[in-house]
Amino acid sequence: MKIGIIGGGSIGLLFSYYLSLHNEVSIYTRTQQQADLINEHGLHLVKGGKEQAPLKVAAAPIQKWRGNEDLTVVAVKQYQLSGLISDLKDKAKGSILFLQNGYGHVKMLSELAANDVFVGSVEHGAVRMNGYTVQHNGVGVTRTAVFRGDSGVLGELSTITSFPFILERDYKEMLIKKLVVNAVINPLTAILKVKNGKLIQNPFYFEIFKQLFDECAYVLELPKREQYFSNLMAVCEKTANNHSSMYKDIENGRQTENDAILGYLLELARSKNKKAPLIHNYYHCIKGKEHEREGA
Amino acid sequence: MKIGIIGGGSIGLLFSYYLSLHNEVSIYTRTQQQADLINEHGLHLVKGGKEQAPLKVAAAPIQKWRGNEDLTVVAVKQYQLSGLISDLKDKAKGSILFLQNGYGHVKMLSELAANDVFVGSVEHGAVRMNGYTVQHNGVGVTRTAVFRGDSGVLGELSTITSFPFILERDYKEMLIKKLVVNAVINPLTAILKVKNGKLIQNPFYFEIFKQLFDECAYVLELPKREQYFSNLMAVCEKTANNHSSMYKDIENGRQTENDAILGYLLELARSKNKKAPLIHNYYHCIKGKEHEREGA
Repeated sequence: MKIGIIGGGSIGLLFSYYLSLHNEVSIYTRTQQQADLINEHGLHLVKGGKEQAPLKVAAAPIQKWRGNEDLTVVAVKQYQLSGLISDLKDKAKGSILFLQNGYGHVKMLSELAANDVFVGSVEHGAVRMNGYTVQHNGVGVTRTAVFRGDSGVLGELSTITSFPFILERDYKEMLIKKLVVNAVINPLTAILKVKNGKLIQNPFYFEIFKQLFDECAYVLELPKREQYFSNLMAVCEKTANNHSSMYKDIENGRQTENDAILGYLLELARSKNKKAPLIHNYYHCIKGKEHEREGA
Repeated sequence: MKIGIIGGGSIGLLFSYYLSLHNEVSIYTRTQQQADLINEHGLHLVKGGKEQAPLKVAAAPIQKWRGNEDLTVVAVKQYQLSGLISDLKDKAKGSILFLQNGYGHVKMLSELAANDVFVGSVEHGAVRMNGYTVQHNGVGVTRTAVFRGDSGVLGELSTITSFPFILERDYKEMLIKKLVVNAVINPLTAILKVKNGKLIQNPFYFEIFKQLFDECAYVLELPKREQYFSNLMAVCEKTANNHSSMYKDIENGRQTENDAILGYLLELARSKNKKAPLIHNYYHCIKGKEHEREGA
């Protein structure tokens, strides 16, 4: 089928590469320059230290997107969505899959014209090497779930065994599970400047880890706390030797997903009139780090 | 008069130098080696980048201390007091002045045999360069107050204009004021890895700064919150370009005064059944950093 992928970051490039193995993929990038690079060089993937065969993928700047593909995959950060949202609402005709972290973007999904609206949660580790090359570090899965409509198109994606898709029943549970993982692991590793595993190996950090989880569970009113906690522990163990995305964003002076993650939880706590001192603290720690970067 | 100074760290060396200008000072160090160095080289002071004239001071290892001086100044860290306490209780006959940060050591002061018991709060910036040389960076004051007895001896100290002493009326207020400053500035600068001034210049860090102060005020049941807050702000502004002692301890892999500062507050919160999530958080952040140092 025809697939349009919006976003030329690590996830956009990764999805473009794997999905183009069995589909006709067009990738839409923020800059004309990146589109030119991809059209010139093809898409490159590095996996297990080895360069894979480059693939031809049609690339164009985002302004060229018409929403005519069978499926559109939105692979930009949540904080970049606001600039796209009016276009997405009107133009997307077929099916559309949103891969953002956080939960704040869910409230606008019902305003979309598209018939089938999906959300996804990516568990791959990927780093963009340059405008047309992505490194696939951690092979994981992509969880998807139906927000509205029919899951048919998602079934076609999951035939690719090297890049598996798992269809989840409950989109909310799926996104919140990821949100909890991001809300605990990301800020703590970014502020304490440690790899993910240290949060459970260092008994003092583990104490904070548990407290921050408790606060998230309280604010989100999680029904099955133990399940969410086991999932959090499992991710932390599995990614013990990795640096979290927020750690890397802070180290490299890039904007983080703080607003989509802790910002969302802080807003939720306020709306429910619940106290969330640790979420408030770490939200401001990360904001302060981003502010330092701006030369303040 | 005869003054004994216990401790060969930066504060012990600084006090030994200045007090020996008008008194007969003996300094008692943890190691024989340091005592030998001081006896051999004399005490050296660097101020404003300039080496001052070295002074002869009698040095001996702490085991030699008999408590016969008119005044004993205890200039070790609070976490080193426990190893000295039984000696201090029995031997100190004249007056004794404790310069520790925190408040946890106050409970044992009433058990001392000495007639006059004082506490002090040092506002000098000093760095130990080697076993017999101290650098006096920030010229400040030493605040002292009577815990028990007569302030007469303290009056004799305050005749030195280049190293002023200020006699405070209320020892508790004096120590708690310093405790609040240390509890807010030290852990935040050590974890956020910033100079003191950033805590009030960066609007996001300032938000955390205020929240942590509020929690300290709540746990300590501060009667005049605004005064304590103005004092905290004033210290932060005055030391804006400095790195806090805890920042430097963490950077250099040394033990911090965490237990005397946040540990004391955490214990106090527990005993009062008060929630102190930020104090708990930063206490464990610092403990975790100390644990990392231990190769964990």
